Amino acid sequence: MNLPNALAYSHVLLQDCIYPGATVVDATVGNGHDTLFLAQLVGPTGSVIGFDIQAAALARTQTQLTLTGQTDRVTLHHTGHQHVADYLTADTVVAAAIFNLGYLPGGDKATITHAETTLAAVQALLPHLPRGGRLVLVVYTGHPGGQAEATAVRDFCVHLPQKSYQVLQYGFINQVHQPPYLLAIEKR
Amino acid sequence: MNLPNALAYSHVLLQDCIYPGATVVDATVGNGHDTLFLAQLVGPTGSVIGFDIQAAALARTQTQLTLTGQTDRVTLHHTGHQHVADYLTADTVVAAAIFNLGYLPGGDKATITHAETTLAAVQALLPHLPRGGRLVLVVYTGHPGGQAEATAVRDFCVHLPQKSYQVLQYGFINQVHQPPYLLAIEKR
Repeated sequence: MNLPNALAYSHVLLQDCIYPGATVVDATVGNGHDTLFLAQLVGPTGSVIGFDIQAAALARTQTQLTLTGQTDRVTLHHTGHQHVADYLTADTVVAAAIFNLGYLPGGDKATITHAETTLAAVQALLPHLPRGGRLVLVVYTGHPGGQAEATAVRDFCVHLPQKSYQVLQYGFINQVHQPPYLLAIEKR
Repeated sequence: MNLPNALAYSHVLLQDCIYPGATVVDATVGNGHDTLFLAQLVGPTGSVIGFDIQAAALARTQTQLTLTGQTDRVTLHHTGHQHVADYLTADTVVAAAIFNLGYLPGGDKATITHAETTLAAVQALLPHLPRGGRLVLVVYTGHPGGQAEATAVRDFCVHLPQKSYQVLQYGFINQVHQPPYLLAIEKR
């Protein structure tokens, strides 16, 4: 088995902390790849709450969920992830959340995630993580605006208090075409 | 299970690519922690080749190997790891190698690893890695000289050709007392 890339390792980290019946958040539904993975991990008694601002992406994901019989455990919201708090109660425990930053592959490359809204969502989600819960971000720097967002997100993570969180950075460092890297915030 | 730190993750990465009967290198024997771990992984038919410039460290490790009945599969050399090529034949396949940089905990803090000798050893070992073989470095920056070595080693890794190797960097980024991070070079 070769060293997994950032995207593959995000699934390893999610798998480790998500249990049947858990509530989890897919902050960037996109093509639904993560959504379906999360739906399998939480099982029929769990709950996946997904966000995306692109209606076509949500429609495609909804189709996949229907085909795989997993619609009951997934709620997709056609709105930005910065509004995630509106869909949680104060005591909702979110076992894990995943962000796939940048633009949607195959979609409009001008529609990208931005530091301000990404960090608003991260800050809204952190209080909901249980001990051992993880917020995972796959960070892209190769597109216009990507480096600025990456810098702001990493800077936020570097300053998270180590008594409450540990933040892992994982990524390949010798590739010419800036591959994504992973940031994982774990609640202690 | 919490996110493993760099030291713990180095063992995960070694475990994944070392098989019974393999030949492996412990470039910095030190307290023998890695040596014993490697000896278990290669088993009675394998071979661990260890290096350290501190005789006391080697003696302690030898005692541990005797107590655990693993002396036959381990050869310890009282010399610097930059001489590793002298102890390999041209066709020796080295499934994995581990470097724990910096100074020996509990030892003389003035005796540290240096970029020049570390990189000489890394360059001598790379041609011996099989496809999927890994050279793992645990890198410390908090001691005098540590940052200079880390910068040189990371710079070397960043420039390794991606067609032949992939290099992973793994570490926590929000800790005040510069924890070690991990660099793993995998032959493709």
